[in-house]
Amino acid sequence: MAKHRTGIWLIGAKGGVGTTCILGIAALRRRLTDTIGLVSELPPFGKLPLADWKDLVVGGHDVRETSLYEESLKLQQVSRALDGELIRRCKTDLDQVDGQIRPGILFNAGRTIEKLADDPRLPRREPPRAAIERAKEDIESFRRTHRLERVVVVNVASTEPPVDGSAIPERWSDLAPLLDKPRRCPLASSSLYAVAAFEADCPFINFTPSAGASSPALCGLALDRGLCHMGHDGKTGETLLKSVLAPMFAHRNLEIMSWVGHNIFGNMDGLVLDDPANKRTKVQSKDRLLRHILGYAPQTHVSIEYIRSLGDWKTAWDHVHFRGFLNTPMMLQFTWQGCDSLLAAPLVLDLVRFTDLAVRLGSRGLLTFLASFFKSPHGVDEHDFHRQFAMLEEWVASAATR
Amino acid sequence: MAKHRTGIWLIGAKGGVGTTCILGIAALRRRLTDTIGLVSELPPFGKLPLADWKDLVVGGHDVRETSLYEESLKLQQVSRALDGELIRRCKTDLDQVDGQIRPGILFNAGRTIEKLADDPRLPRREPPRAAIERAKEDIESFRRTHRLERVVVVNVASTEPPVDGSAIPERWSDLAPLLDKPRRCPLASSSLYAVAAFEADCPFINFTPSAGASSPALCGLALDRGLCHMGHDGKTGETLLKSVLAPMFAHRNLEIMSWVGHNIFGNMDGLVLDDPANKRTKVQSKDRLLRHILGYAPQTHVSIEYIRSLGDWKTAWDHVHFRGFLNTPMMLQFTWQGCDSLLAAPLVLDLVRFTDLAVRLGSRGLLTFLASFFKSPHGVDEHDFHRQFAMLEEWVASAATR
Amino acid sequence: MAKHRTGIWLIGAKGGVGTTCILGIAALRRRLTDTIGLVSELPPFGKLPLADWKDLVVGGHDVRETSLYEESLKLQQVSRALDGELIRRCKTDLDQVDGQIRPGILFNAGRTIEKLADDPRLPRREPPRAAIERAKEDIESFRRTHRLERVVVVNVASTEPPVDGSAIPERWSDLAPLLDKPRRCPLASSSLYAVAAFEADCPFINFTPSAGASSPALCGLALDRGLCHMGHDGKTGETLLKSVLAPMFAHRNLEIMSWVGHNIFGNMDGLVLDDPANKRTKVQSKDRLLRHILGYAPQTHVSIEYIRSLGDWKTAWDHVHFRGFLNTPMMLQFTWQGCDSLLAAPLVLDLVRFTDLAVRLGSRGLLTFLASFFKSPHGVDEHDFHRQFAMLEEWVASAATR
Amino acid sequence: MAKHRTGIWLIGAKGGVGTTCILGIAALRRRLTDTIGLVSELPPFGKLPLADWKDLVVGGHDVRETSLYEESLKLQQVSRALDGELIRRCKTDLDQVDGQIRPGILFNAGRTIEKLADDPRLPRREPPRAAIERAKEDIESFRRTHRLERVVVVNVASTEPPVDGSAIPERWSDLAPLLDKPRRCPLASSSLYAVAAFEADCPFINFTPSAGASSPALCGLALDRGLCHMGHDGKTGETLLKSVLAPMFAHRNLEIMSWVGHNIFGNMDGLVLDDPANKRTKVQSKDRLLRHILGYAPQTHVSIEYIRSLGDWKTAWDHVHFRGFLNTPMMLQFTWQGCDSLLAAPLVLDLVRFTDLAVRLGSRGLLTFLASFFKSPHGVDEHDFHRQFAMLEEWVASAATR
Repeated sequence: MAKHRTGIWLIGAKGGVGTTCILGIAALRRRLTDTIGLVSELPPFGKLPLADWKDLVVGGHDVRETSLYEESLKLQQVSRALDGELIRRCKTDLDQVDGQIRPGILFNAGRTIEKLADDPRLPRREPPRAAIERAKEDIESFRRTHRLERVVVVNVASTEPPVDGSAIPERWSDLAPLLDKPRRCPLASSSLYAVAAFEADCPFINFTPSAGASSPALCGLALDRGLCHMGHDGKTGETLLKSVLAPMFAHRNLEIMSWVGHNIFGNMDGLVLDDPANKRTKVQSKDRLLRHILGYAPQTHVSIEYIRSLGDWKTAWDHVHFRGFLNTPMMLQFTWQGCDSLLAAPLVLDLVRFTDLAVRLGSRGLLTFLASFFKSPHGVDEHDFHRQFAMLEEWVASAATR
Repeated sequence: MAKHRTGIWLIGAKGGVGTTCILGIAALRRRLTDTIGLVSELPPFGKLPLADWKDLVVGGHDVRETSLYEESLKLQQVSRALDGELIRRCKTDLDQVDGQIRPGILFNAGRTIEKLADDPRLPRREPPRAAIERAKEDIESFRRTHRLERVVVVNVASTEPPVDGSAIPERWSDLAPLLDKPRRCPLASSSLYAVAAFEADCPFINFTPSAGASSPALCGLALDRGLCHMGHDGKTGETLLKSVLAPMFAHRNLEIMSWVGHNIFGNMDGLVLDDPANKRTKVQSKDRLLRHILGYAPQTHVSIEYIRSLGDWKTAWDHVHFRGFLNTPMMLQFTWQGCDSLLAAPLVLDLVRFTDLAVRLGSRGLLTFLASFFKSPHGVDEHDFHRQFAMLEEWVASAATR
Repeated sequence: MAKHRTGIWLIGAKGGVGTTCILGIAALRRRLTDTIGLVSELPPFGKLPLADWKDLVVGGHDVRETSLYEESLKLQQVSRALDGELIRRCKTDLDQVDGQIRPGILFNAGRTIEKLADDPRLPRREPPRAAIERAKEDIESFRRTHRLERVVVVNVASTEPPVDGSAIPERWSDLAPLLDKPRRCPLASSSLYAVAAFEADCPFINFTPSAGASSPALCGLALDRGLCHMGHDGKTGETLLKSVLAPMFAHRNLEIMSWVGHNIFGNMDGLVLDDPANKRTKVQSKDRLLRHILGYAPQTHVSIEYIRSLGDWKTAWDHVHFRGFLNTPMMLQFTWQGCDSLLAAPLVLDLVRFTDLAVRLGSRGLLTFLASFFKSPHGVDEHDFHRQFAMLEEWVASAATR
Repeated sequence: MAKHRTGIWLIGAKGGVGTTCILGIAALRRRLTDTIGLVSELPPFGKLPLADWKDLVVGGHDVRETSLYEESLKLQQVSRALDGELIRRCKTDLDQVDGQIRPGILFNAGRTIEKLADDPRLPRREPPRAAIERAKEDIESFRRTHRLERVVVVNVASTEPPVDGSAIPERWSDLAPLLDKPRRCPLASSSLYAVAAFEADCPFINFTPSAGASSPALCGLALDRGLCHMGHDGKTGETLLKSVLAPMFAHRNLEIMSWVGHNIFGNMDGLVLDDPANKRTKVQSKDRLLRHILGYAPQTHVSIEYIRSLGDWKTAWDHVHFRGFLNTPMMLQFTWQGCDSLLAAPLVLDLVRFTDLAVRLGSRGLLTFLASFFKSPHGVDEHDFHRQFAMLEEWVASAATR
């Protein structure tokens, strides 16, 4: 038996990101692919005792009935984002993980997600506390069955509508009782999963813009139980570029007058974000960092539109209008054509490996050294990608000596 | 009289960059513009005792007969890059600097530059040593006349064809005698100017891709005389973006398969680069850094084309083809529309101020802390812009404490 | 005195398009510019007896207090879209036309336009019939004063919010009485101007997406009085490209799966369109033609956003996702960077000249041969630009023989 | 047996275009695909008695040893341009056509093509006349074996270096004797194939920029034998856009100052064009039409670069700089991302069907009504795509009545 058998519990396991994570682990284990796209495989991280691909076991929650093989084929056929041969050769693994995926939680998830939720096993009108208990039991049973040393819970589900943060009590002891009262519970599914993770003594990573463990009450719960967590919203494409380009303008003293970003894509995440309620959560997360990096607030506009034909190909057009010397206006435009799930999945695997190691090294609370992976890193004011990456390198240096 | 009256001696003073530098100083002095575009005006550099705009005096060399006012109007009318009102209000200053510009050197400058050289005062068939003496005397006379504490010589002239570096002796003592033998002299104008600067005890900054002071013999001459210098090729646009974006791909372990960059513009620099001989020098400088940053060599293609109608608007289209997780190919494209002279001029002024201070603080040899300003920074292997900028910040921190 | 002294009466005379029209006529008359951008100056139209630039006299309505000279300078300084020298040399003409501009009509124009309306002479709470009478008297007085043979009224004002077309009676005789009852009048300003034009026996051209004379009742009024008119929404940029590119895809049997168009700009028209009510009118006009040209309805998305820093530079990014042979998805993207007012103004002048000639040749009713100038040409189902242009050529051929 | 069993003889049958043609016919016959991309399947052409997909039989020449199945897989794996499942289901058909492909001709084809030619059966140092006889016999044997009514020969091979047209005698009777003298023969392979086609009484279509049948001597040969032919250089992507957009600028009287087009791609055609000799032929063909459409010659620049990673994805960036009213400069940029073979193949099939019908209807000489398919249509001065398409529609109308 391996020294560090680690579980990954994916919330939204059958979505594009979840499916690609699972397919990716299978492909890595079977040596059908190289390690391109994985930050944790970069040379500076090679000396760390990170979990080996063959020691990772995957399970998760989802609200849809589909299978991982079907979802993989969809990514291949609709988006031409994956290689069909690779999928066929990993089919056994995908089918095996299907058996580890349990019905998820639907609570304040918004109408659009509710419409997509077609798993007949999903309990309807389940009170929040019951949902948490059920999810917690799923995770614990997964850990027991596979004799896992540790399970890292990662939220890769579709974005929920924003919740009213002011309605959430500051302290866990004040929030806990509300979980028994469906009408008064101010949390949504993503936070119930976080509670379940913490109560099952698991670290929790929120790769989505949903609330997850970001409220002070849940942060308190994690600290009380000596657990670590981090979030939120994976920085995969357009925002990654913003966090790289904005510092360049700042360092050259070029004044950004306006930054317009239009995003179009057609995967399920796009369908969910097409609901204005869910979209609001996302746009906030994409738009904030410019102000932080520049120290002033240029006019910005961010749009996200669901364009069916694009499938998983997230295409962004950004138009940056800036002023140079003697007030001369100039322009930078870029188009980013990236496969959303293929960009996100390796980062999720990196986060799991780094979190797993951090837990072994005794970390608790927010894993701020992971800031470079997130659009809105909890507890971190630094949005310059290169400085965030330096934070990761420093942690690695210190981890290597422990 | 000011404490630090500093001279700027511009090689190619009437070109687009030179003209904009001179107009810019006039506008800054008359408070007709703000300080956008000037790195040395960023907050972290505010505490340094940098030369004040009103303490800078400009002179220079050029091979053309035109006037600074005419060249400014051309930038306004052909390129719509400048404000006509601003030019009119600075006309007196421009006319005054015209009087400080002396006929330049034409030696191995290539046919295209020779065709542009229309100043009737230009000595033809002047031996290199005589040219150096003349240039040196011009600089010294300028320093005397204006009672300057120091003159920083900056090359902003058009790009020369490459010289055969292997023909240049390693040691100054072996090179010096060749300057008396026109046929055997392996240097071109840019290097003669550098020798003149050094022999006049001036620091020398090479903002162009021409050889300048980059040969070991000239570096030796500078060191022997206790002078400082730096180069080469100002990093203003497309290459700046490369030095910011390539590290992002590297840090995300995304493999760049190919990076194609097409540059079009129509100013005089473009006309000169349209000559394949001169272009070769430039393309080498733009193309090298990817390999350094990435640690492997993707297929690259860089083109520079002279498109008359664009005037000073340097427009670059870059197409970056990269591989992500599970080998999925993706794309980033950008279009950069920048005014070449307006991007370059403030950096030249920054370099003068930083060099002036470095001299006062006792620096000699290569000013490697200025790497972030150059496409091919002498003596520096680091091409990641953000790391280069950190080198500048470190120097500032140490300078502030001296 | 010239044979055909023709008046142009501009609704929204001080807006970007109006100002540029007036400046353009001045520049053409003074021979300070060539005729680039003017369709009516193309060789095939050279033989037509079109009004000469020196025979055109301009007046108009506006709701703002500003002057044409100020507005011209704004186009130059904010947008760098005009040459400052040209404006100065035409100042006398601009000032003279200022005297011909009368306070406009504000009726159902929407809150955003009402906020911009700062001419203190504007009557507030004026009943529609009174407004029409006043406007009619303005036009007639202008015609008398300048002894004009004819006045062509053109609407170049900002876009109004859409009106409820179903509330407008089909027949003029049923609509006319409602004009006396402010609360029951279903028209907005653009239509009141059209009525005033018709009652003053003037042809009416609607260059905006507002309703203008498009309702059956107003068409009837025009026909009854033997007048001609045409509209609506000038086809200047992104939509022009759509009407040229969509037929290409159709003729190659390439299936457009989605066509996304994002428009950003910062002039006053943009500010008005930033109001969702006004924007709705515009987006409908931009989005319709694809369906007509292709014969099927691909997914489309059109956005228009006000980005202050862009001024008059309307920048559009279009992403066309299409399917080729064996279902392979491919892409065309374009970026259009055009000066809105500079693209529109010459078309307005063309429309005036063609309409003036059509009137002389005895046309009445809709001038369908002008379809190529409009996004939504009244009474014309053909949206293929090249076929629309052939309609103009045919009319010219027939006009030349009359 | 079908009424019109027609053969297609592809020169370069195993290249990207040839392979896709053959795969496409198989897929159409097996009803595995719809008819997207095929012009001849558009409604207006539906009434014509065009050859049915099941009545087309394919053979051809090639100089490489590879198989059609291998080449199809390459298009799928390297370029992700085809569906793997489709290829597998058509494998039998591909293998069957492999048996119909004979070794081609290598004569003045240039070093790059010679290096690619690895079919061991290729005769080396074969005199031109012998090559023609061999090719002719191949075609005639194919026609006999399959009892074909007619064989349309289409050149889809890689571009040859340009030949010296002035060295080719004007009359066939003067040219014919030179074919016996290898050293004095001024033709290259593409023209030898054309001679073979004509001598086998077949119509000849030149889809490439190579010379083919374009010289007066070969045109004469075709006319003498009562055959029809057309060329050259299929208009698939960037040039198609030019022929659609340039008329728009012309009709709006917008002056194009410069038009820059950069093309990058990585298929075998790209590899061949990477040889400057072969590239020259292509660039000429792409660059000419602007002058024809506009009536003046803007500055143009066309580049074609081989970028391996792009495979069959031909990506073009075009930058159009134009002047509008009052001389204001504006810009249109587009990026075209198209699969070269997938764009070309259906046009080749269309050309075969239209040519086949034209022959049945008694046409001889140049098939000028096919101009819309070519970058440089023989005998046609019209380059406006929409007018060219009207020529096709007129022919169809007249064909339908015969």
